[in-house]
Amino acid sequence: MAEFSQSDPRLGRPAAVTPPLRRSGGFDVATLVGLAVAVVMVIGAIVLGGAPESFIDLPSVLIVIGGTVAVTMMSYSIAEVSRAQRAMLKALVHRPADPAVAAEIALTLAEAARERGPMHLQNRLSDLRGRPFLLRSLSIVIDGAPPEEVERTMSSEINATAARHARSAGVLRRASEVAPAMGLIGTLVGLVQMLGNLDDPGTIGPSMAVALLTTFYGALLANLVFAPLASKLERNAAAETLVHQIYLLGALSICRQENPRRLELLVNTVLPPAQRVRYFD
Amino acid sequence: MAEFSQSDPRLGRPAAVTPPLRRSGGFDVATLVGLAVAVVMVIGAIVLGGAPESFIDLPSVLIVIGGTVAVTMMSYSIAEVSRAQRAMLKALVHRPADPAVAAEIALTLAEAARERGPMHLQNRLSDLRGRPFLLRSLSIVIDGAPPEEVERTMSSEINATAARHARSAGVLRRASEVAPAMGLIGTLVGLVQMLGNLDDPGTIGPSMAVALLTTFYGALLANLVFAPLASKLERNAAAETLVHQIYLLGALSICRQENPRRLELLVNTVLPPAQRVRYFD
Amino acid sequence: MAEFSQSDPRLGRPAAVTPPLRRSGGFDVATLVGLAVAVVMVIGAIVLGGAPESFIDLPSVLIVIGGTVAVTMMSYSIAEVSRAQRAMLKALVHRPADPAVAAEIALTLAEAARERGPMHLQNRLSDLRGRPFLLRSLSIVIDGAPPEEVERTMSSEINATAARHARSAGVLRRASEVAPAMGLIGTLVGLVQMLGNLDDPGTIGPSMAVALLTTFYGALLANLVFAPLASKLERNAAAETLVHQIYLLGALSICRQENPRRLELLVNTVLPPAQRVRYFD
Amino acid sequence: MAEFSQSDPRLGRPAAVTPPLRRSGGFDVATLVGLAVAVVMVIGAIVLGGAPESFIDLPSVLIVIGGTVAVTMMSYSIAEVSRAQRAMLKALVHRPADPAVAAEIALTLAEAARERGPMHLQNRLSDLRGRPFLLRSLSIVIDGAPPEEVERTMSSEINATAARHARSAGVLRRASEVAPAMGLIGTLVGLVQMLGNLDDPGTIGPSMAVALLTTFYGALLANLVFAPLASKLERNAAAETLVHQIYLLGALSICRQENPRRLELLVNTVLPPAQRVRYFD
Amino acid sequence: MAEFSQSDPRLGRPAAVTPPLRRSGGFDVATLVGLAVAVVMVIGAIVLGGAPESFIDLPSVLIVIGGTVAVTMMSYSIAEVSRAQRAMLKALVHRPADPAVAAEIALTLAEAARERGPMHLQNRLSDLRGRPFLLRSLSIVIDGAPPEEVERTMSSEINATAARHARSAGVLRRASEVAPAMGLIGTLVGLVQMLGNLDDPGTIGPSMAVALLTTFYGALLANLVFAPLASKLERNAAAETLVHQIYLLGALSICRQENPRRLELLVNTVLPPAQRVRYFD
Repeated sequence: MAEFSQSDPRLGRPAAVTPPLRRSGGFDVATLVGLAVAVVMVIGAIVLGGAPESFIDLPSVLIVIGGTVAVTMMSYSIAEVSRAQRAMLKALVHRPADPAVAAEIALTLAEAARERGPMHLQNRLSDLRGRPFLLRSLSIVIDGAPPEEVERTMSSEINATAARHARSAGVLRRASEVAPAMGLIGTLVGLVQMLGNLDDPGTIGPSMAVALLTTFYGALLANLVFAPLASKLERNAAAETLVHQIYLLGALSICRQENPRRLELLVNTVLPPAQRVRYFD
Repeated sequence: MAEFSQSDPRLGRPAAVTPPLRRSGGFDVATLVGLAVAVVMVIGAIVLGGAPESFIDLPSVLIVIGGTVAVTMMSYSIAEVSRAQRAMLKALVHRPADPAVAAEIALTLAEAARERGPMHLQNRLSDLRGRPFLLRSLSIVIDGAPPEEVERTMSSEINATAARHARSAGVLRRASEVAPAMGLIGTLVGLVQMLGNLDDPGTIGPSMAVALLTTFYGALLANLVFAPLASKLERNAAAETLVHQIYLLGALSICRQENPRRLELLVNTVLPPAQRVRYFD
Repeated sequence: MAEFSQSDPRLGRPAAVTPPLRRSGGFDVATLVGLAVAVVMVIGAIVLGGAPESFIDLPSVLIVIGGTVAVTMMSYSIAEVSRAQRAMLKALVHRPADPAVAAEIALTLAEAARERGPMHLQNRLSDLRGRPFLLRSLSIVIDGAPPEEVERTMSSEINATAARHARSAGVLRRASEVAPAMGLIGTLVGLVQMLGNLDDPGTIGPSMAVALLTTFYGALLANLVFAPLASKLERNAAAETLVHQIYLLGALSICRQENPRRLELLVNTVLPPAQRVRYFD
Repeated sequence: MAEFSQSDPRLGRPAAVTPPLRRSGGFDVATLVGLAVAVVMVIGAIVLGGAPESFIDLPSVLIVIGGTVAVTMMSYSIAEVSRAQRAMLKALVHRPADPAVAAEIALTLAEAARERGPMHLQNRLSDLRGRPFLLRSLSIVIDGAPPEEVERTMSSEINATAARHARSAGVLRRASEVAPAMGLIGTLVGLVQMLGNLDDPGTIGPSMAVALLTTFYGALLANLVFAPLASKLERNAAAETLVHQIYLLGALSICRQENPRRLELLVNTVLPPAQRVRYFD
Repeated sequence: MAEFSQSDPRLGRPAAVTPPLRRSGGFDVATLVGLAVAVVMVIGAIVLGGAPESFIDLPSVLIVIGGTVAVTMMSYSIAEVSRAQRAMLKALVHRPADPAVAAEIALTLAEAARERGPMHLQNRLSDLRGRPFLLRSLSIVIDGAPPEEVERTMSSEINATAARHARSAGVLRRASEVAPAMGLIGTLVGLVQMLGNLDDPGTIGPSMAVALLTTFYGALLANLVFAPLASKLERNAAAETLVHQIYLLGALSICRQENPRRLELLVNTVLPPAQRVRYFD
């Protein structure tokens, strides 16, 4: 690798290859900060209005959270629910790979392949361990598959991955529908009990307050947790698909031994204007 | 078969073929456990609040359950409703075939066909009685159909099966919309009766409690039974489609007499990373 | 025809051709029974609660039924609304043709054409008067059109028919949205009148009961009549499309002079497992 | 033209060409009658309940109608809103061209072109001024464009026209969502004002009645005006697309110099059974 | 350029090229005027009803606006939210390019290329700096790319741009769903607090009024700000896509060295009738 850098300073460009490798999988503060702010807003409103203790009711918590988890589990398999849980935790902090960085990596590799032949890439595969999709695409190319097969095989993987992500987001989306329904069921239980016992007017208010708590919990769970994380998962999946498409464009360009400038042109059409790469200038 | 195992210990691999056959059609605890937990949560909330007997009202049960079944039957044919009922019961306990197992079976058969010729598969068809789709695909291949015809014929079956599953899920989905509507109708009946009879204030509470019961039943039926089982059916249908696609990939690979390593590559693109098979290493 | 049966007892099979002709257009009890049960449930709940006369209010009936019909008519043309009404009445009792029967008819005709030449079918066209789509498909085939043209022409008809059925179902679907809206409008009228006249508390209950009646009527009309019949129409249209596709497969097979066993294979892929035909065994 | 009629009485058929020209753009009573009936129903319910003057409140009218127009204008451009207004007024009375008539015109022209050559049509173009799409299609054909180009060009126009109609319908659809929202906002304003002023119980009823009026207006506007007219526009657009497709089929048939009987066959596949034309019998 | 105008007065037509350049990016009053009118309507209703100060409650403002921003941020990344904010501000005042003007520019350039060769366009590229998409399309054409590649590359950019715009509109669409949810959560907090403290009946009204304020704010934010601006963004994106398609048609026509009259024909099929250009008459 050292020898390789010496013989061609351009390809060595460690600054171009390494930082992206580090940047990918960055930390995404938007989700955690957003969640924190939203929770603070709600808690602030509760504390300002007084009597925060009246917002805590263990049976209500149980029926909403337990019921939501149970019904969501019914709708899917245990494996999918736990995969969605992992995806949810990952979505809290994980930032998907940057398409501009992916474009630069694809261009670096395409240029190296152009100058030294596709076989030369073999030595660089070990650098790509953190990018399994790119690694797999290039392995097929190096194995000598024709471009049509590379495209069909890796497109099939892009689609299957996107479908899997969609399913994980679907679990959360489903949970965001179940939570208000469980809240409504809990409130109906409370209302029926209160209405059957109207003799003591003094208890009507507090009973009804408790009955409304499950609706409140359901709304919180759905709107502050499940729905935004489902959107986030969908969004991250779309970003990952874009990155994979850029890697596939790069692998195809190498496979067809095209001019990397054509790849730059192609890759720039899918990047937002502000992120377009200018590799060859 | 014994002779066959001896001549080629690799192909015989009983451990590879038999366990999957057993595992397919496994028992799925998620649905039953989820349902049980959700019901326990609701019953717990009712018992904790006291007066559980006030949650049982036979006319309300009749109008919601009877009305939901009747209206759902109106929307479909009797045959479809009973097929959906069977699908619903099956979804409660049945786990769809595992795509990783399907991939391994497809690879085992492809390797056998590669080494001994497609005709050799004839002897193994009887092992596949529990997998009618794979059996039918291989029969067509052995009958000498060209790959395009195998693909068109079996894709048509995959689509038709998926459409049928979608219809069964649709029946439950429809029932999950009808149940709250019947609950609302029951509650409106109760409200009109109560409002026409406001003279005795002591009866307002209990009358309204009874009126709300149909809404409560409708919400339970829709959210704890029909909607999750509809999701489950859709999910199981998607899993079955994936398994069928893997079988079709295998049959096409045998038909085209391709290298099974290519099949492995192809099959792995549609499997989740954790379930990818490594048959040839 | 008699001579024809004698020369080939197989083709004559009157039992195979005639009963289907009779069975098609059968009587579908699901809709009427479902409607009857649902209505009985609601009436039962009303009678059990007492004061059934308080559920009848002519102005409320007028505003909901009249308003729903008027607004639905606004959304479409008079011709479409009356076509949807006929389709609605037909959906109440009519069972669409059975795809398994259609498959058997297609196979019988394909075998006859195979053994005696497509021209021979000319004599049998008169038997098919109850199946205009099949009749038209075969006429084009006998006129000597190439298979591509048969496929394009009849696929265009399948699509146009499906679009027309979708429009009729759309009229009912629209009515099922309009009815609750008219119910809400009626209830708002009643509420505004009641609230402007709160001086006599004794009239509040009955006034509000009457105001709620339009919501009740709207919910009944939408959920017990329009929505299930719209689903039924869509379902019947899907069944008819399937039957037409089977007929088209048959006509194409005759046009291409293919082996009818291939047709059997193809037709079985679109039939549910329990309805698959075994014509050639 | 006179000479032309004489030489071939068939082509001259003035009864076949002229009446359609008159019938197109007919008057559609369904919308106006539907609107009138629905309004009469609502006014009847108001008058029967007494105190019709309590249903008129100028500020409520302003906030709902003004707010709906303003917010709809925000969502689109002024040009689109005014185009949608014109489309709305047109949908009130205008009946789209009849596809059966369009089919007959296409067949008449195709037969004339068949018998006397496409160039002959030049003389008849002036008759088609009321059918700009047909006029433009035939002009391109007469200019000698190949059928593929005729199809691509005119299909592009069909799609663009359909997209424009969809946008106009979308403006009304949007207005039908905005109106209830403005109604809710008005009601919330009224409720907050009433609740802040509970001291005088005598004003609660009337204040709440006024607060509900905006919800009532919003529901009327959405369900009696915007939603049905949006459906009507969509429906008329679908009918116009069908007519344009028939004209395009005719132009293509003339361009390819095909037998007009084939055109009849093709055109009948897209017409409803009751409207099918029998031109050549 | 001066010399160029002299040699061919037609091509020089400064009036045809320059005014469009100025008109593009015009000012769109519909959004601001619509917003102003809607706000005036609501404020008018508040002031007319008296006690406008009771509509201002800082904690309610905080929980709705802060919560909506926070939850929307959770659903996306910070970059996307800020891009959506910029898009929102731009949508307030910016009018997308006029397709008729774009058509005229494309025709002017196509005619110039036709008469003096595509290479001649090089000199005019600097005029197109305000139209980056057209500039890029023509650069590829001048670089000698074949038409298929021009079409594939620039179509990919059109799709990627449309997807980006859709995402920005999606952020606002999401915000318009979150705002009422936060309003509901705030109202539930207020209701629970009020119900726990029913002893003093004098505070019920004002407490409930305050509780309703968050619902009111949520409805205002969603229906007067986020939803209309999301529609506006979608609409502007559709208009921009249309303009880009016209530019692409022009670039392809130049690339294929076709007759510009064909371009006029093609471009007119996608323009609304009132905006069709008559360049060659």
